[in-house]
Amino acid sequence: MSPPIFASDYVDTYYEIHGNADAYPIILVHPIGGNILIWHHEIKLLLKAGFRVVAYELRGHHRTSMGRTKAYAMRDLVGDLRSLLEHLKIGKCTIVGHSIGGIIASMYAGAYPESVDAIVLINSSPKRFTDRDLEKHFKNREIAIMQGIGPLVEHKLKAPELRDLLSNKKNADFFREVLTKMSVDGFVAATLALYTIPENGVEKLRSSGCSVFAIVGSEDDVFMRLLKETKQEIPNMELRVLQGSDHWVVIEKPVEMYDILMEFLGRIKPKIVKTPP
Amino acid sequence: MSPPIFASDYVDTYYEIHGNADAYPIILVHPIGGNILIWHHEIKLLLKAGFRVVAYELRGHHRTSMGRTKAYAMRDLVGDLRSLLEHLKIGKCTIVGHSIGGIIASMYAGAYPESVDAIVLINSSPKRFTDRDLEKHFKNREIAIMQGIGPLVEHKLKAPELRDLLSNKKNADFFREVLTKMSVDGFVAATLALYTIPENGVEKLRSSGCSVFAIVGSEDDVFMRLLKETKQEIPNMELRVLQGSDHWVVIEKPVEMYDILMEFLGRIKPKIVKTPP
Repeated sequence: MSPPIFASDYVDTYYEIHGNADAYPIILVHPIGGNILIWHHEIKLLLKAGFRVVAYELRGHHRTSMGRTKAYAMRDLVGDLRSLLEHLKIGKCTIVGHSIGGIIASMYAGAYPESVDAIVLINSSPKRFTDRDLEKHFKNREIAIMQGIGPLVEHKLKAPELRDLLSNKKNADFFREVLTKMSVDGFVAATLALYTIPENGVEKLRSSGCSVFAIVGSEDDVFMRLLKETKQEIPNMELRVLQGSDHWVVIEKPVEMYDILMEFLGRIKPKIVKTPP
Repeated sequence: MSPPIFASDYVDTYYEIHGNADAYPIILVHPIGGNILIWHHEIKLLLKAGFRVVAYELRGHHRTSMGRTKAYAMRDLVGDLRSLLEHLKIGKCTIVGHSIGGIIASMYAGAYPESVDAIVLINSSPKRFTDRDLEKHFKNREIAIMQGIGPLVEHKLKAPELRDLLSNKKNADFFREVLTKMSVDGFVAATLALYTIPENGVEKLRSSGCSVFAIVGSEDDVFMRLLKETKQEIPNMELRVLQGSDHWVVIEKPVEMYDILMEFLGRIKPKIVKTPP
């Protein structure tokens, strides 16, 4: 078995690769605060469906190092994914990204269209945020810097957008278990990297020719707005709204999410050379 | 004499304060890669003219620490200046900022208009950059991260925008002496912070009622463009173009720059209660 750390010039990336080498590869990219644990349900089901699954952790999240410097741009995260997939010799694939993970997927498809069949955006979009969208992170960063990750996670658990999560103790405990594994440096750098989403992201994604699918919780105001705008600019994008769900759909509704994901993957079957059973 | 380090919750800031406590305060904010040394000519002349001068160094530059985290937003730099001026009990003042220093001055005036009479932007503007404006920093960051600050400074000395500097060995040596004192973390974080200039910066500066002055080298394409746009949005802004000069006017033309600065300071005299002799 290959070591689960890929050391590039910049960062030591922890990854997992599951399934047969000749199965079609699905790449999973987690949100800020997440890590591979967040995908445990999807990984199990995607493997059962015959896919190959690559999951990895972003700089400063759980088992991946921060790299040589503690500040980075979105483009650097795209470079990390590129280095990893080249190292793993992954050919054409589909990238599933949640929140910042979907921004990475969008930029990756725009930069390397020949390597990507489709991207699936989960509460994510290729568009820039407004200052207002990113405002809450200033308070969150201050808590992380002054008090640490534990108090930050407790603060997030009190946020209105987590009311659905909180109504289910198992979900809340799982959220806590996953998010407490990020580092302060990782959280601060990732939330600041959100300012560096390229101006021409939608244009590059559209002209990549990759299939674009999106899933969004109806209560996630920011991504509902950004995905509606994206849909106008990329009319071919397929968009599904998960009613009553918010930003953390992967934790809240993993089964419903998986069903939509499989529907999307079925839709790109003609593009997938080695179709899973 | 007070210690020259101000330790806030976030960062240990190195500063210098010169001149009589009852003289009118001028605050100097250096560019990325700079530090207090870059102002040596201006500090001497401003003191002779009877002003009080406060100069300090930004996070990760020369004698100021990076703080608790190695990534930050422009707003954090504005907070650092606010903490320092409160600590020093500086009342109304004029802030002179070069490049990122002028962005800090603009945001500070927008946030605390009651504390600022005027700002002087030197090759700077309150406007957001385009992605294209910031593109060169990706290459510069890579050199800094992979090779270090020395090679980065040599690379910058070969850049077309430094052709005027290079034609004078004394200027080139001084540039080298100043810039090699920044840290890799400081350079990386500061260039990434440029993405976090607020959307409404011009609007907030305009409505602050502070006087706005600007000096720009005619060969500095980016700031010539941004300041022309700023002038349209803030028609009261006084703008002077230094012909044949580029981004590093403080090093290239300290005498000409000082003359314009004094002219500007003369213009705000009615606002200055304790007029220097």
